[in-house]
Amino acid sequence: MRQVAIIGVGMTRFGEHWDKGFRDLVTEAGLNALKDAGLSGNEISAGYVGTMAPGSLIGQEHAGALIADYMGLNPVPITRVEGACASGALALRQGIMAVASGIHDIVVIGGVEKMNDLGTAAVSRILGGAGDQEWELFLGATFPGLYALMAKRHMHEYGTTEEMLASAAVKNHKHGAKNPYAQFQKEITMETVLNSKMVADPLKMFDCSPITDGAAALVLAPVETAESYSKKPIELLATDQATDTLALHDRSSLTGIKAAEIASKAAYKKTGLGPKDIQVAEVHDCFTIAEIMAIEDLGFFKKGEGGKATLEGRTTFGGDVVINTSGGLKAAGHPVGATGVKQAVEITWQLRGEAEGRQVKDVEVGLTHNVGGSGATAVVHLYRRL
Amino acid sequence: MRQVAIIGVGMTRFGEHWDKGFRDLVTEAGLNALKDAGLSGNEISAGYVGTMAPGSLIGQEHAGALIADYMGLNPVPITRVEGACASGALALRQGIMAVASGIHDIVVIGGVEKMNDLGTAAVSRILGGAGDQEWELFLGATFPGLYALMAKRHMHEYGTTEEMLASAAVKNHKHGAKNPYAQFQKEITMETVLNSKMVADPLKMFDCSPITDGAAALVLAPVETAESYSKKPIELLATDQATDTLALHDRSSLTGIKAAEIASKAAYKKTGLGPKDIQVAEVHDCFTIAEIMAIEDLGFFKKGEGGKATLEGRTTFGGDVVINTSGGLKAAGHPVGATGVKQAVEITWQLRGEAEGRQVKDVEVGLTHNVGGSGATAVVHLYRRL
Repeated sequence: MRQVAIIGVGMTRFGEHWDKGFRDLVTEAGLNALKDAGLSGNEISAGYVGTMAPGSLIGQEHAGALIADYMGLNPVPITRVEGACASGALALRQGIMAVASGIHDIVVIGGVEKMNDLGTAAVSRILGGAGDQEWELFLGATFPGLYALMAKRHMHEYGTTEEMLASAAVKNHKHGAKNPYAQFQKEITMETVLNSKMVADPLKMFDCSPITDGAAALVLAPVETAESYSKKPIELLATDQATDTLALHDRSSLTGIKAAEIASKAAYKKTGLGPKDIQVAEVHDCFTIAEIMAIEDLGFFKKGEGGKATLEGRTTFGGDVVINTSGGLKAAGHPVGATGVKQAVEITWQLRGEAEGRQVKDVEVGLTHNVGGSGATAVVHLYRRL
Repeated sequence: MRQVAIIGVGMTRFGEHWDKGFRDLVTEAGLNALKDAGLSGNEISAGYVGTMAPGSLIGQEHAGALIADYMGLNPVPITRVEGACASGALALRQGIMAVASGIHDIVVIGGVEKMNDLGTAAVSRILGGAGDQEWELFLGATFPGLYALMAKRHMHEYGTTEEMLASAAVKNHKHGAKNPYAQFQKEITMETVLNSKMVADPLKMFDCSPITDGAAALVLAPVETAESYSKKPIELLATDQATDTLALHDRSSLTGIKAAEIASKAAYKKTGLGPKDIQVAEVHDCFTIAEIMAIEDLGFFKKGEGGKATLEGRTTFGGDVVINTSGGLKAAGHPVGATGVKQAVEITWQLRGEAEGRQVKDVEVGLTHNVGGSGATAVVHLYRRL
């Protein structure tokens, strides 16, 4: 198996792009990544794009071919991959396999979602398709509601407080304020979070990630040729994916995402690395409780101690591990299919030392954690400078 | 790179399954394939599913996790792949890469679509998402209309007649009558096709494939261990994919599908095989004109001679090459995401000598040709007995 490296990254700013369509966003991110890698289109062997619901959001399926067309890459094969909010990391994972197998050499990965063309109720229904449609959405469950159940149980079992949840949002906004690609580049206070409107008890508006348009892209190459393209190639050390029941009510526990725990343990085992070896991680904070569970599932903190650790500042600069330097889904925004790819872009910038005002010192190993639905899919990648 | 083989196949009957849902269909096909391979779920390392539009058709995205859940396979990673009507072959292609890379060993491939829960107009709009939504569907183009334009041009340039088109449908119904999994298991006459209602001139109702529910599945393994699972493993010799413009109006020619020609030439080059080495092929006859173009694009007949060859019986038993022994999309049905996987199932049965009443004699090499949209994606696979 050939080892694989990231040789180029690019993105659009995340936010409300009323003046740009799906195809504009993904082309912009893709061209930025190609430029970063110093490549032209005719050097590309294949592509993958992670996007959750363009069929429902904008009436367009077949996004792989669309992108090949709009980036002027025909007849290069580009394929869409979907796993709800984990679509981006799954696209990266298929790209790794395409290079590792020797079937393709230079592979472009895109992630994109255009969400602001419909009203919030319609978008909420469409996002509900990430859960179990027959047992959850049809019966009235929405994603804030599902994550609220997890938050309530975490509070009940471990004494996690609303302040602890809120501290994840405050920290992520602080990080996002330094990220020129983030949707919200401003800090917020604990009071802002706690006093914001209730969405699904105990999750308030500022506990929730926003609706976002945006795209991100990566260029992959085999490790053995990566240095001929990039001065700072980033090696992909592990790609691991696991599933769990689609419906939350079938799980044995609501206080963690088992698929994330399984995927991260597999990645650690494969590499001989552990949570203590990681200085920076992008985790899937679709809601504040999701970040608390993530840092426990990934082994950064013991079960039940994630909330306290976040409140105490152990997940920001100067802490044990810096979580979500990009601002996470909360502040950087969550264009669903783009999120997993953006996480890899951010970790690449951190490992290259190019994260400017939000650069973590002495980064050796980075991790990304991308979750689909309420945890039915989880994907973990580990990264290191080559 | 590890070579990959098919060690198990299974499907549901294609048709109108009013009593079965999406999850029932794909589970039934998957379990049939596992049974055929003599495997239990805990031997599965990963899975891929091709499905075009469950988000729009049944409100359910995240089909990979759904299937892992309903087949009782958690935490096995299962990922959805989409490329419109080529979704099935793309799922197979990702499965090949997963095994070839060494990342996974035993991989299950599914293809599924549940289409009969909505009215024809709604389904037609959803299928329009396989083309260029902004430049085609929004302006009134539907798929029968797009393929009708290709048919008209083919008739104009090469003298192809309505009888030649109809002969593909008559032949495929004759084949489908022998396939217990086909939606329509009855023969039709030339008069039935020519006298059927006009859909989009010159395509009449019997020139068009139907709306279908169904699922198909495969089990893959590395060639080196395939014989320990199956007495008749089938080797995947080549997997090739190409893209073209999403919108038909951007193409330099309307009389062929360039992506299919490019993908097949790549597959032939890689294997040293050519059209003359192939005894049986499943091609993407979403409309009769699509089969005529396919057998030309794949090199079985010269450009412009596909219609005549079909009318003369050169693509049925006793002819140069037997096309669509399953009945093709026309008679076997076209549950969009399942079609590409069903094609591989049928070729496997032919190569094993298990196709019963529709068995072609002395089959050495088989081919599948799966097309997305009006040809923006094409995927070609070559198969041989191990």
